[in-house]
Amino acid sequence: MSELMSYWHSNEEQQKILDNFSENTLSNFPMPFGVAPNFIINDQTYCIPMVIEESSVVAAASSAAKFWMDKGGFKTTVLSTKKLGQVHFLWEGDGEKLRYHFPEIKKRLIEECFPITNSMVKRGGGIMDMELISLTDKEPGLYQILASFETCDSMGANFINTCLEQFSKSLTSFFKTSSVFKSDGKVEIIMSILSNYTPECIVRAEVECAVKELGKFPNGMTAEAFARRFQKAIRIAEIDPYRAATHNKGIYNGIDAVVIATGNDFRAIEACGHAYAARDGQYASLSHCTVEDGVFRFWMDLPLAVGTVGGLTALHPIARRSLELLENPDAKSLMCIIAVAGLAQNFSAIRSLVTTGIQQGHMRMHLQNILNQLKATQEEELSAIEHFAHEIVSFTAVREYLENLRLAR
Amino acid sequence: MSELMSYWHSNEEQQKILDNFSENTLSNFPMPFGVAPNFIINDQTYCIPMVIEESSVVAAASSAAKFWMDKGGFKTTVLSTKKLGQVHFLWEGDGEKLRYHFPEIKKRLIEECFPITNSMVKRGGGIMDMELISLTDKEPGLYQILASFETCDSMGANFINTCLEQFSKSLTSFFKTSSVFKSDGKVEIIMSILSNYTPECIVRAEVECAVKELGKFPNGMTAEAFARRFQKAIRIAEIDPYRAATHNKGIYNGIDAVVIATGNDFRAIEACGHAYAARDGQYASLSHCTVEDGVFRFWMDLPLAVGTVGGLTALHPIARRSLELLENPDAKSLMCIIAVAGLAQNFSAIRSLVTTGIQQGHMRMHLQNILNQLKATQEEELSAIEHFAHEIVSFTAVREYLENLRLAR
Repeated sequence: MSELMSYWHSNEEQQKILDNFSENTLSNFPMPFGVAPNFIINDQTYCIPMVIEESSVVAAASSAAKFWMDKGGFKTTVLSTKKLGQVHFLWEGDGEKLRYHFPEIKKRLIEECFPITNSMVKRGGGIMDMELISLTDKEPGLYQILASFETCDSMGANFINTCLEQFSKSLTSFFKTSSVFKSDGKVEIIMSILSNYTPECIVRAEVECAVKELGKFPNGMTAEAFARRFQKAIRIAEIDPYRAATHNKGIYNGIDAVVIATGNDFRAIEACGHAYAARDGQYASLSHCTVEDGVFRFWMDLPLAVGTVGGLTALHPIARRSLELLENPDAKSLMCIIAVAGLAQNFSAIRSLVTTGIQQGHMRMHLQNILNQLKATQEEELSAIEHFAHEIVSFTAVREYLENLRLAR
Repeated sequence: MSELMSYWHSNEEQQKILDNFSENTLSNFPMPFGVAPNFIINDQTYCIPMVIEESSVVAAASSAAKFWMDKGGFKTTVLSTKKLGQVHFLWEGDGEKLRYHFPEIKKRLIEECFPITNSMVKRGGGIMDMELISLTDKEPGLYQILASFETCDSMGANFINTCLEQFSKSLTSFFKTSSVFKSDGKVEIIMSILSNYTPECIVRAEVECAVKELGKFPNGMTAEAFARRFQKAIRIAEIDPYRAATHNKGIYNGIDAVVIATGNDFRAIEACGHAYAARDGQYASLSHCTVEDGVFRFWMDLPLAVGTVGGLTALHPIARRSLELLENPDAKSLMCIIAVAGLAQNFSAIRSLVTTGIQQGHMRMHLQNILNQLKATQEEELSAIEHFAHEIVSFTAVREYLENLRLAR
């Protein structure tokens, strides 16, 4: 227990705030908080905060940032910011009649939500639209109200869920009191909740340069060979789901690191992005690449529902610092920054894979971690690095190697 | 900067170890480390460590654990533990000839990997099989070697990647020296890397009881009504991808919390699980429910590649404590525990959705967080809880409410 206590914050009040984010909390679990500098995004320079426990991720992001710095940097466009929510209900009446009267129902649901939407509307958001979807072909009597929202700089989960629960109350009361539906039996609300799948809350991130500007690569690989091999690697992730999962996992190494650092919810971001990657019927790469007319282009359209106000953004002390480091961006700017971190990560990963292979860098960093843990001297470190150049690095293997080294002395 | 420094560990050597997990590290990002007690899994009791910044998740897991405690608890079965890796290469020769000679190539690749696989074989693992897949119908000259591995108690990424890079060296040298393929031109390796998509590294978690044992629910809902509504909610996530993403997101609230707590990589787990959720051509629910012959059954098959040795498991001080708390499970046991945390989470989320709605609990916890942050007195707290019972909770709204309250005094 004393080890757990050693991770408490020295300020008791601050620790209480951290403890209250969750329940039954015993301590803080420390995750490395680092920065990836030198990002040029739409001609502005950023130093991006990242929270990640995996080695090489921050180094890879920084390296991609530097690579693209003198090639125009990253460009981004927010394509749309539509959030979604659903009310599912059972109703055994005449479907055509329901469809016919839905405009009237919709008007009533939106009106009765005014007290809730009022302040969001003042900020330029609110309920955007609402449609009725019949799922009766798959499940008898099942309907869905799919509502769309604009939630401005908040991720919007609380706002959307509160609206949806009001919709379900209004819907129940409408069916109870409507003379038209009197004989159709009552409606049964199953549940009301936002959808984390937001394919129209989406940002595009891209890089582009002449192939010859790409420069030189390890082992004498030319810019042309690199561009061709890079494009093939992306193509493989487009056609093979086994490769696509790993490819997209690398993208989320970059994305989640910024999502966590800025107090957003990475499970929501992951679920949305991977569902989006499967939207055409086969799970596939999120990023794409073309090499045409001497131009190398690499881009990604990424659904991303994040907030810069609300949730933990102001409550978590380091999340607040992260947003400050990014000069307190609005939600759209944060979408751009996060998407760029993902694309940068992907660029570096694929660059490693098609040039030196992934293990060279990984193994070196993993070995360093283990050597630190085992308190290796500098002399032992050099000796171990040489030895493990051609061996698999594992905690046990390194410990045994050091033990033998120390015995031999 | 001094705020960032306040999150450093007091022991400089320990902080150095944390810093070295990643690069350009400035401090630790604290995530709440909590426990969910009372889990019965295959008749054993567990207290499950969870790292999560979202409120209600640990409470929901604990509540589901308690609910199922006197109904037989959770049952789990590890269905298989196959890990995968791929070598992609371009080759312009005769595909039939390649297929014909593949057994010979395979033998050579496996043999030349002996020095690497040796110690894993001793532990009962190693290379299990290898097949040649032609992707030439989608991309001219493109082939894949899909290899399967058993990596025992390690997640196996380093082992698999090292084997694959050796395969690619052996393959290149085979084509260079083979007299049969002399006239077919040379092979070009594009890349060698593990696949995070492991649909055959999979565990089943389930709960089951008589419907009448389910007990009573809020607002007089009977066990029968609850079972029926719960089953409908799962059915909705099976047929609608917009709902499925949110549904599975909730499952990963539980899963990732244990994955992080035990030093495993949640991006890999997420990518695999969501790709698996899309395996039938439409993204769908990971969990399933039946209510038949008076029996309620709720279960999930979850692909899950985790380790209890290697990676950060021994290096991260709190991950080590988490594994101790679970009595140092092997990888298979950890698969079971993680899957149960996901199923428990899902049970509680759906139970809330089909009974009281999700906002009641969420809003209460969110409000408490903000009140703590704003140092509300107990009197102010009570007043705010009453006020926000029918208002949207946001940081600004609560701050304004408290300001007005304080001014009015």
